[in-house]
Amino acid sequence: MSFTIGVDYGTNSVRALVVECASGREIGTAVFDYPSGDHGVLLDPRDPHLARQSPADYLAGLEAAVKGALAAAAGVTGFSPGAVIGIGVDTTGSTPIPVDARNRPLALDPRWKDNLAAQAWLWKDHTGADEAAAITRIAGEHAPQYLAPIGGTYSSEWFWSKAWRCLKVAPDVFAAAASWVELADFVPAVLAGVDDPAKIQRCVCAAGHKAMYSEAWGGLPSKEFLALLDPRLAELRDRLFEKAWPPDRPAGRLGSEWAPMLGLPAGIAVAMGGFDAHYGAVGAGVRSGTLVKIIGTSTCDCAVAPTAQKVQDVPGICGIVNGSIMPDYYGIEAGQSAVGDILRWWVEVVCRGDEKDHVLLSREASSLRPGQSGLVALDWNNGNRTILVDPRLSGLIVGQTLHTTRAEVYRALIEATAFGARAIVERLTEYGVPVERIVCCGGIAEKNDLFMQVYADVLGHPMLIAGSPQTPALGAAISAAVAAGAKAGGHSSFEAAQEKMSSLKAKRFDPDPKAKAVYDELYGLYRELHDVFGGVPGAKADLGSFMKRLLAIREREAG
Amino acid sequence: MSFTIGVDYGTNSVRALVVECASGREIGTAVFDYPSGDHGVLLDPRDPHLARQSPADYLAGLEAAVKGALAAAAGVTGFSPGAVIGIGVDTTGSTPIPVDARNRPLALDPRWKDNLAAQAWLWKDHTGADEAAAITRIAGEHAPQYLAPIGGTYSSEWFWSKAWRCLKVAPDVFAAAASWVELADFVPAVLAGVDDPAKIQRCVCAAGHKAMYSEAWGGLPSKEFLALLDPRLAELRDRLFEKAWPPDRPAGRLGSEWAPMLGLPAGIAVAMGGFDAHYGAVGAGVRSGTLVKIIGTSTCDCAVAPTAQKVQDVPGICGIVNGSIMPDYYGIEAGQSAVGDILRWWVEVVCRGDEKDHVLLSREASSLRPGQSGLVALDWNNGNRTILVDPRLSGLIVGQTLHTTRAEVYRALIEATAFGARAIVERLTEYGVPVERIVCCGGIAEKNDLFMQVYADVLGHPMLIAGSPQTPALGAAISAAVAAGAKAGGHSSFEAAQEKMSSLKAKRFDPDPKAKAVYDELYGLYRELHDVFGGVPGAKADLGSFMKRLLAIREREAG
Repeated sequence: MSFTIGVDYGTNSVRALVVECASGREIGTAVFDYPSGDHGVLLDPRDPHLARQSPADYLAGLEAAVKGALAAAAGVTGFSPGAVIGIGVDTTGSTPIPVDARNRPLALDPRWKDNLAAQAWLWKDHTGADEAAAITRIAGEHAPQYLAPIGGTYSSEWFWSKAWRCLKVAPDVFAAAASWVELADFVPAVLAGVDDPAKIQRCVCAAGHKAMYSEAWGGLPSKEFLALLDPRLAELRDRLFEKAWPPDRPAGRLGSEWAPMLGLPAGIAVAMGGFDAHYGAVGAGVRSGTLVKIIGTSTCDCAVAPTAQKVQDVPGICGIVNGSIMPDYYGIEAGQSAVGDILRWWVEVVCRGDEKDHVLLSREASSLRPGQSGLVALDWNNGNRTILVDPRLSGLIVGQTLHTTRAEVYRALIEATAFGARAIVERLTEYGVPVERIVCCGGIAEKNDLFMQVYADVLGHPMLIAGSPQTPALGAAISAAVAAGAKAGGHSSFEAAQEKMSSLKAKRFDPDPKAKAVYDELYGLYRELHDVFGGVPGAKADLGSFMKRLLAIREREAG
Repeated sequence: MSFTIGVDYGTNSVRALVVECASGREIGTAVFDYPSGDHGVLLDPRDPHLARQSPADYLAGLEAAVKGALAAAAGVTGFSPGAVIGIGVDTTGSTPIPVDARNRPLALDPRWKDNLAAQAWLWKDHTGADEAAAITRIAGEHAPQYLAPIGGTYSSEWFWSKAWRCLKVAPDVFAAAASWVELADFVPAVLAGVDDPAKIQRCVCAAGHKAMYSEAWGGLPSKEFLALLDPRLAELRDRLFEKAWPPDRPAGRLGSEWAPMLGLPAGIAVAMGGFDAHYGAVGAGVRSGTLVKIIGTSTCDCAVAPTAQKVQDVPGICGIVNGSIMPDYYGIEAGQSAVGDILRWWVEVVCRGDEKDHVLLSREASSLRPGQSGLVALDWNNGNRTILVDPRLSGLIVGQTLHTTRAEVYRALIEATAFGARAIVERLTEYGVPVERIVCCGGIAEKNDLFMQVYADVLGHPMLIAGSPQTPALGAAISAAVAAGAKAGGHSSFEAAQEKMSSLKAKRFDPDPKAKAVYDELYGLYRELHDVFGGVPGAKADLGSFMKRLLAIREREAG
């Protein structure tokens, strides 16, 4: 019997999971909550856009979570730490860390330890909004090819926005950084004992989706382009990397420093790191024709298409990167910037309710038929990530009467996110990425039956649920099993590993044809608002009759 | 010293008020809550549109409220019931009552007492929606002149919709009715002892605003037209009235039956009845250039223009009727179908709060600057009465984020009703009805300072508040003083009576120029949504930039 470990770095904690390679059975897990800041996030009371993390938390969490998971697995028949053949890591991203020449985060140096700019720049740090806008504008003028695979807009959440921001507000930190390393690359490098940033194996997942890396133009953006932003960014390029890799190779072998700390055999495979959503997709069984939806506060949609089959750029889709999810496939990423967050806003901020009220509202909303609320909403309370790629959009609800209830609004908001999901699926299929099977993961998928049924009815697809509640950690463990290889007791390929190690729950949600028909109509209304308020060129809508058409559906369906 | 009594029939109760003619001093009042139904409203559990009242409640309330007010005034120096020189009545409307040949409500006959169709059809009864739509359609085809002065659309709340509905669903009641009498005409007739429906002095207020009466076409709609609806409605016309009157004459003299019942001198003047909003405007001091806003669950706007000055029809304004508010003036009525009701919906239905929460939300919303919420709403949760005259419109809110608070929405809804109010004022002035002074009455005007300040800032006018909290009853008392005449100790004209008997509170709300400037911008955004979703032909809007413009205002004002 052989086992691998997946280590999943989330926003507030890190989890380790021990998985049996032959069956995917999860035999031990442990979670370490980051001790620093507000639930692990360092904040600046003067700037609500700032979100950083302490690299020390990552290292303390790596040791504690892995040891905890091993301890939890200790009693399982056939398991021993010596039977662990590989370790894999997934993380949030883009979460770049400034490091010194020995790949040590600057934040671990007493000189920089209290400087927020020297910490890890967490994915949701939005301080680089101006820089992102400038990158989009300058790339649009001088190098539009850089924007095509990322949907046309560079985000404040991404690598270059953050590095540039640091350069502007903390030039001393920027100057002290020998390099910048994504958290997804940093942790495997630490495990493998890589003490030179130039020798880190960088994953194409982070590079391609967040740093405008592509083999099509020879790697990162050219120095000429970066010099248009700032000459010091062009210089930084030399201290980053020439080549990034798909997870078709190990990042290294577990080194002599960390093997004893973790109680694992030195020399076992350390898989390439990857983003949580991508390894989550792997753990959920992503393959050609399958869309994996990771549904949480926001939603991340992942799909793959064989590299052999040419995939064109899809307008408004965040990223299409060769090898970013699995080797030999394009990784395709889309997303909705607020899903669970919209429901949380309604229930907790507006209705001032709690978890119990989510359940009550969901139950009450379940008794409504599609169309009966008379409401249509846009799901843009946090902007639109896909397919409009516009953070400066906002929410909209139409159709309220003097009797509209909070449960009706709750249901309308679920429907709005489902319509947004449908817009993404339609965009993908329109551009040749087939969607034949939809697998969901995340807490909402497991807990909110109304949500899942609405999605099935709106999307017209069965909504399947990933078997593991920890698909990112499982995906990292799968990657570790592939990195270890079949001879060592792992697997020969991602496909082979997924076949044995990933699964679906028995529970599924099938579309109801009658509900589907009403939602087809309502989706048409949603798209009118979506296209008009989204500024889609040539958008057609008859808003003068909009409320009346909505009311007619309501009256018919309230029957 | 001389006194008059105003009797105000509301939806849930009737109030009597004793007023000194020389000063307007209110020296005694009493309220009688209708004992029947749900707070005075007879409902049908099978039909939420039905709202009726028991005529017996009106008569019991007349006696109890007047006697109560006289008792309350009893201790006042100089007062005695013998010093009362007139009595006036205002009521809800259109509230028609089927009566027998002796002007006795059918509902008082044991044969009909439990039949809902034989009761008074309360103003907010909407069972005649289909009939209203048919009247609008048929008049549009055959007699468009009937629609011009009522804004182009006949309402389910109005006389002919109700009579026709009765004919359809309760033909026995319709056949038994010798005539139909508006509550506003019925009570004065009862006081004056008129026992023949043909001899009732009908007020032009009800006839003109609700029954398509106009001297321009010789009274009520022609028999030919009514026959297009139903021949039995054409026959009913013969049993209604040829001529309706402004309040330039008494409806009669207090008769021998009611004088002793009330303890008042027989033979004193009984003023013409009128609607509560119209007599409310009189009590608030309406005159040329003054707009009176009666702000409650909905808002009724009243203005007058001298008959000598020709007033054109104003598209979308509910009614322009010669003499409906005061003699020698056109009475002009507009309105918003939900004002306090929208706030009540938000606070009580959505937030599940109570009176205390209205105060808390109002306080919280007061700390926001105009534009700071980033929201714009339409005030159409109950349709739009003026200027679009379309009950099939609904609510809309745009601009929500994940942080939007209930207080921000509360403020946005107040602002939405203020924008709706501004659209009405702009429409009036555009068509030559000057608005130089705005006087408000109603509970909101007296209690909600935030509401009043927002209105001042949005409308760009000081918001004045009527001195009396009972302007409808005061207006009826003013009308009674005019009906009694100067020689009897009353007044020679409405203008003279208002001069002495109506007043303003010292408290007023003046526009803040900075807030006004921001609201001018936001009103522009409101009008884009208003015109586009309202189906205004040729409406212009750039909705693709809408959310961004709103966000830019928010960011600037949140400063």
